[in-house]
Amino acid sequence: MKCRVCGQPASINLRSYKTALCDADFIAFFEKRVQTTINKYNLIVEGDVPIVAVSGGKDSLALWHLMNKLGIPCDGIYIDLGIEGYSETSLDKIKKAAEILKRKVYVFRIRSVLDCGVDGLAKAMRRMPCSACGMVKRYIMNKVCMDKGYNVLVTGHNLDDEASALLGNVLYWKKEYLWKKDISLEAKEGHLSRKVKPLFLCSERESAAYAIMNGIDYVYDECPFSMKAKSITYKGMLNTLEETSPGTKLMFVKGYLKTQKDVVKAGRVVGEVTGEDTRQTKYCVNCGYPSYTEKCLFCWTLEKFGIQNDVKFDEYGPYSIDSGHGVMT
Amino acid sequence: MKCRVCGQPASINLRSYKTALCDADFIAFFEKRVQTTINKYNLIVEGDVPIVAVSGGKDSLALWHLMNKLGIPCDGIYIDLGIEGYSETSLDKIKKAAEILKRKVYVFRIRSVLDCGVDGLAKAMRRMPCSACGMVKRYIMNKVCMDKGYNVLVTGHNLDDEASALLGNVLYWKKEYLWKKDISLEAKEGHLSRKVKPLFLCSERESAAYAIMNGIDYVYDECPFSMKAKSITYKGMLNTLEETSPGTKLMFVKGYLKTQKDVVKAGRVVGEVTGEDTRQTKYCVNCGYPSYTEKCLFCWTLEKFGIQNDVKFDEYGPYSIDSGHGVMT
Repeated sequence: MKCRVCGQPASINLRSYKTALCDADFIAFFEKRVQTTINKYNLIVEGDVPIVAVSGGKDSLALWHLMNKLGIPCDGIYIDLGIEGYSETSLDKIKKAAEILKRKVYVFRIRSVLDCGVDGLAKAMRRMPCSACGMVKRYIMNKVCMDKGYNVLVTGHNLDDEASALLGNVLYWKKEYLWKKDISLEAKEGHLSRKVKPLFLCSERESAAYAIMNGIDYVYDECPFSMKAKSITYKGMLNTLEETSPGTKLMFVKGYLKTQKDVVKAGRVVGEVTGEDTRQTKYCVNCGYPSYTEKCLFCWTLEKFGIQNDVKFDEYGPYSIDSGHGVMT
Repeated sequence: MKCRVCGQPASINLRSYKTALCDADFIAFFEKRVQTTINKYNLIVEGDVPIVAVSGGKDSLALWHLMNKLGIPCDGIYIDLGIEGYSETSLDKIKKAAEILKRKVYVFRIRSVLDCGVDGLAKAMRRMPCSACGMVKRYIMNKVCMDKGYNVLVTGHNLDDEASALLGNVLYWKKEYLWKKDISLEAKEGHLSRKVKPLFLCSERESAAYAIMNGIDYVYDECPFSMKAKSITYKGMLNTLEETSPGTKLMFVKGYLKTQKDVVKAGRVVGEVTGEDTRQTKYCVNCGYPSYTEKCLFCWTLEKFGIQNDVKFDEYGPYSIDSGHGVMT
């Protein structure tokens, strides 16, 4: 198979685009796609100060690399969930990336507040680990934006993540979730940062290829708690379809974005379609995070376990390259 | 495992209802569910003259049996698609059922109009067999209603059929199909009969069990042309989900029906949501069947192949039990 652009041997076959490319042309193709997505959906506009949520995996590290390469300087935020043998390895890869990119990374360690990891928290909350993890991540990632002056949180959710979450939402038609999924989520001034997903239309396989071709060192293993998640089943199903009908995931997600716009617009006129919450948005009396109750779930959880809400970030950055351990703020 | 109702050994485990039942109690349960569906969605109302579309498979034969048992007298319509080794076996089962039920069945033979079966027609039309088959079935089933005085066409589409078709529609978000799927489709007076699907909320496994427990003799094999259909892939995917999360298919289809109502209502107000065709509905100048073009696809196809549109039905019925071959009208 030859590269469609230069005629040299191709290194990746992109069946959903009916094309094959060599390393250099794939890198250019991938970067152009992400840049186009950013422009088309106004993900980053002039004056924005974005920060990338990094996990140590291929998507977020590829994205961090790419954003900076595209001339959109981004620091990073990492949440150490205290998962043995996983969280520390992830942090090592992230520190390495921060050094290469010469960018700062903020680190929040769950064990600096709780005396357990996210699995212990989940047990105490009687929730699944993914549910507790989501709660912590949403809160902390917003907090770093609010506290440190970033106005856009950039996440590495890829096409496979979005398609599988969308499939789950569609299977149960939960209107309060279904029509809210989007490539960018609006800010609530002073309370909630904007959230954007530049890899929304790029597959897992593509972001992995981009990371490998750029020599980005990332954690190969999936989070040990994600193994039982339904999203893995959904991803498997969608991959089966993709094999026989290349491009299915992309059409599914792009078609949704279009439908969602129509439905949300109609819902604003007639109501009742999107399950828009009619309760007035309130803010946590303790921390200011959006919450329908007096205290947000994060503050409520800490209080329940008698813990002081004293979230602090370690900062590792361009000035700490030689120490290898970063500098505490 | 014991029957939840009578405590005798259960013969079927219904995981999506968290129950197990013996033969007699399952039959009662299944009939009550179908009756409830008919009442809740006003599928059959007083004064209706329904006819069941029978294929010879478990769903349509179980439904035909059940409708008559529920006190809703129904004749049948069978379309012989001229598929060798399949169409004749199917007709045999249907004739047998007609005799048992003491009801009439109309038979249209594709070879009475064309000199080939549905596969030949598909080739000539350069379409997939399922596409040609759908065109013929929609036309002929409507025609028997119009010509013979039936106002409701009752089809045996089950939960698995509907869930898999819905999944296909949702994956591509084709708004012109997606929001049109429904448990009943309205009539166009004098042109199109109403269509209803009483098994919409009953799984394939349930209708097979009902047929077997009632000693209904049906064709086990699927149509040989359906093997390559995408619907088979979708059904497999949904069955995998059903295994780990019983009730998924039912929630998917019921959730859709609710969402569809909201979206269609909103679409009527603001437009643009459901892709409602704004072209005025016209009727075929030749046969009166609804068509956006001057001639409907059926008439156009016959004309293209130089064939006279001379659709006639054979009638087999209660008066022909002893002949075994029916009486031509």
